[in-house]
Amino acid sequence: MSDAPPVTGDMPVAEFRREAHRVVDWVADFLARLDGLPVTSAVQPGDVRAALPRTAPEGGEPIDAVLADLDRVIVPGMTHWSHPGFHAYFCSSSSGPGILGELLAAALNPNCMTWHACPAGTELEQLTLDWLRDLLGLPDPFSGVIYDGASASSFHALAAAREAAGLEIRERGMAGRADLTPLRVYASAEAHSSIEKAVVALGLGRAGYRTIPVDGAQRLRPDALVRAIAEDRGAGVTPMAVVATVGTTGTTAIDPVADIAEICRRERVWLHVDAAYGGSAAVVPERRDGLAGWDQADSIVVNPHKWLFVPLDLSVLFTRRPEVLRRAFALVPEYLRDGYEGRVENYMDYGLPLGRRFRALKLWLVLRYFGRAGLAARVREHLRLAAELAAWVDADPHFERVAPVPLSTVCFRLRPAGVTDAVALDDVNRRLLDAVNGTREVFLTHTRLDGRFVLRLVIGGIRTEQRHVERAWALLRQEATRLSPGAKGDGDGRAGS
Amino acid sequence: MSDAPPVTGDMPVAEFRREAHRVVDWVADFLARLDGLPVTSAVQPGDVRAALPRTAPEGGEPIDAVLADLDRVIVPGMTHWSHPGFHAYFCSSSSGPGILGELLAAALNPNCMTWHACPAGTELEQLTLDWLRDLLGLPDPFSGVIYDGASASSFHALAAAREAAGLEIRERGMAGRADLTPLRVYASAEAHSSIEKAVVALGLGRAGYRTIPVDGAQRLRPDALVRAIAEDRGAGVTPMAVVATVGTTGTTAIDPVADIAEICRRERVWLHVDAAYGGSAAVVPERRDGLAGWDQADSIVVNPHKWLFVPLDLSVLFTRRPEVLRRAFALVPEYLRDGYEGRVENYMDYGLPLGRRFRALKLWLVLRYFGRAGLAARVREHLRLAAELAAWVDADPHFERVAPVPLSTVCFRLRPAGVTDAVALDDVNRRLLDAVNGTREVFLTHTRLDGRFVLRLVIGGIRTEQRHVERAWALLRQEATRLSPGAKGDGDGRAGS
Repeated sequence: MSDAPPVTGDMPVAEFRREAHRVVDWVADFLARLDGLPVTSAVQPGDVRAALPRTAPEGGEPIDAVLADLDRVIVPGMTHWSHPGFHAYFCSSSSGPGILGELLAAALNPNCMTWHACPAGTELEQLTLDWLRDLLGLPDPFSGVIYDGASASSFHALAAAREAAGLEIRERGMAGRADLTPLRVYASAEAHSSIEKAVVALGLGRAGYRTIPVDGAQRLRPDALVRAIAEDRGAGVTPMAVVATVGTTGTTAIDPVADIAEICRRERVWLHVDAAYGGSAAVVPERRDGLAGWDQADSIVVNPHKWLFVPLDLSVLFTRRPEVLRRAFALVPEYLRDGYEGRVENYMDYGLPLGRRFRALKLWLVLRYFGRAGLAARVREHLRLAAELAAWVDADPHFERVAPVPLSTVCFRLRPAGVTDAVALDDVNRRLLDAVNGTREVFLTHTRLDGRFVLRLVIGGIRTEQRHVERAWALLRQEATRLSPGAKGDGDGRAGS
Repeated sequence: MSDAPPVTGDMPVAEFRREAHRVVDWVADFLARLDGLPVTSAVQPGDVRAALPRTAPEGGEPIDAVLADLDRVIVPGMTHWSHPGFHAYFCSSSSGPGILGELLAAALNPNCMTWHACPAGTELEQLTLDWLRDLLGLPDPFSGVIYDGASASSFHALAAAREAAGLEIRERGMAGRADLTPLRVYASAEAHSSIEKAVVALGLGRAGYRTIPVDGAQRLRPDALVRAIAEDRGAGVTPMAVVATVGTTGTTAIDPVADIAEICRRERVWLHVDAAYGGSAAVVPERRDGLAGWDQADSIVVNPHKWLFVPLDLSVLFTRRPEVLRRAFALVPEYLRDGYEGRVENYMDYGLPLGRRFRALKLWLVLRYFGRAGLAARVREHLRLAAELAAWVDADPHFERVAPVPLSTVCFRLRPAGVTDAVALDDVNRRLLDAVNGTREVFLTHTRLDGRFVLRLVIGGIRTEQRHVERAWALLRQEATRLSPGAKGDGDGRAGS
């Protein structure tokens, strides 16, 4: 039993020290055995709840009891996002320095809403975001602000675009404008659902969102964008923003941002770039060409919690027009006036959130511990592994790659000899996904491409090495062979050893 | 020097274990010396940045170097929100179990966006929010969802209210409705700025927000609300939501929620209760009467990161109408379809955020470590200390209390004998605030009440004991005496020993 907690005050420091050392050992042991754990859980809906008490304990319980339940219920009930076999969605892997950063942030626990409310919190956010901007090769005029996730970052970017439209929406509302022409936001048919959610939340409605067709490589077609804007203007619709994606969620396509930026300049429309996943590739200098034009955006979202090894959550919105973002959101009540207004940055002025935890700290630790070169090396290795996997897929007659691999995600499907029916092909691929995930050694997810069910394998976890990708490919080939015997023995022995 | 990080992979586990133990000792030492640190910083704008390198290091740096900079730059540059002398804004103090919860969450690092993406993450969120609901005495029909802060919780509540209005705004937008009658949200003149921010973000504009006058105790006047709604309806405005506050930020006034709920029922208007701070008082069963009627709301926000000793950030929105919230936000793209839809809760469907970190874990640790009785005892003690301070203020002829103390915040001002001019009174109180904060032993903030500058002293930090409140009061009296010698020697020796 741990000490009984006193009636007032925090856990005594001596107890905290002892318990924290114990928790650290638990965490280190967890990280050491992570590779050997199943990446996904075998629980069924309701199992986790059923294994835990239905009400909070009346008296206090020791930390020991919690650690026991972590081992008994939580860890076996989890999908392990930091596992080297995690290749689903987009990766979001924790790292040692990131974990230590969160520990420190929780202990220091300031609210970084205004400079005065925590000077070091505000200034470290400014500093680390300038570091990150430089690391990504973005120019000086961009300044950053941290939100929890990309959904929030894009929401705030589009709110700024709405403000930039100069229609007095902040004062009069969407429906109170003198000029009630509908506003519209454009993004490719492959853009992330958070964009449409933001458009709906901001009061434009789903009708205020228009998707633009993509080319054969799932990239927004600039000609179609030009036509859509012209058509809408002709119908009395005002284009409010275009969202270009650098790394779509389906196939990680990179929209032709330079062309789109040119259109936006001409049309005087806000350009927001969703580089939540793909932006991290810019830490590899020789890969920046792939993102050409993104630096011409009005705003860009990049998520260090996706592919820069910072634990959830930390998303960054960079913008060249912070004053517009500020105009959209600043609203300072008396109890927050502190005499520093105008002399300092008060991050609360740049968005909805007032309570702002010290997220910059973990980014600072990650940037310092790995350094610029260390981060570049890791992302570069992921890009290399993805190219290698793509080559294996290409070399295997039973698989087909269904999209280019501009980043670290490979999209492919099984094409067993003789199976040509679309429904049958979808079915065998769905069964392949289930079979491979059923091993619980790896976790992949799927998407649909031109109606076809396709598998995605994302490489972005900090613990993922060549051998993990080889193992994933071996499992895919092994399960493919079971599902369609014709896929056996194709003689490609490069992977799966 | 620490080990040089390898070119790929995470910090090696052995190094993590060693560094994490070192960081834990740093944190424990920090917590042990917190009481003796200045609560605020002496830095001037720019000092923190100037003390740190302008770009990220090229090669990696050891964690040691970061700890050295924490001691040299960050800690001295901070406002210490967990300090026992922190009485500003609303408190937000970290606790031992909360810190351990964050450490574990950062190590496990799942994204709790769907059940399948982390079953234990989703189910522990459901479980802990049910525990919390019971702890607060709220009835079963309420179910909860975690957001980062109260601003987000209230934003989502009002988005649900907009959806509940049945105007097809999700599809057609605010300005695309067949019926363009303006929508309006009502809250007291003392409501939090986040409410107006949410109204603006949702596209109602500041014109869509109407403040209702308060009574002498800063509580929303139901008669004035009834009149405003009638007047607006007469002018073709549709009331969309009323926000009642349980613990306003200025003086912690509690609106007459039962009366307001009755009006909302009659008028068929969504009632949202902002109990971000005050709701925590409901963990003290004998104090629930003070919140009477809040359980009749459509939605309620309570922030465990304010007064339930959970580190930033963790805000909970409870609602009786989760299906409306879901209708406002659910939008499921193919790459997130996993076959579990309809059988499980996917929290991503209840809001903008898709990336959702494992916040429930720290709440679970805090609820288990302190237990129901332990949390009640701590909040009860804060309520007692505030009542005691209020009595000291009342007994001192040189001070006046300017608002009731329904919770744990005391609002007061100095009234030196002979000073009656409003400007002079404001001035002496501003100087008193500066002088007391200038000691850096305590940190208080101010508000304005009927135009008067008044001081607020909030008691809500987990480390704040009787002696800290006594010391704060002694400092106030001491500085008051310096500023207006007449305030000296009033013979009340109960505090300030």
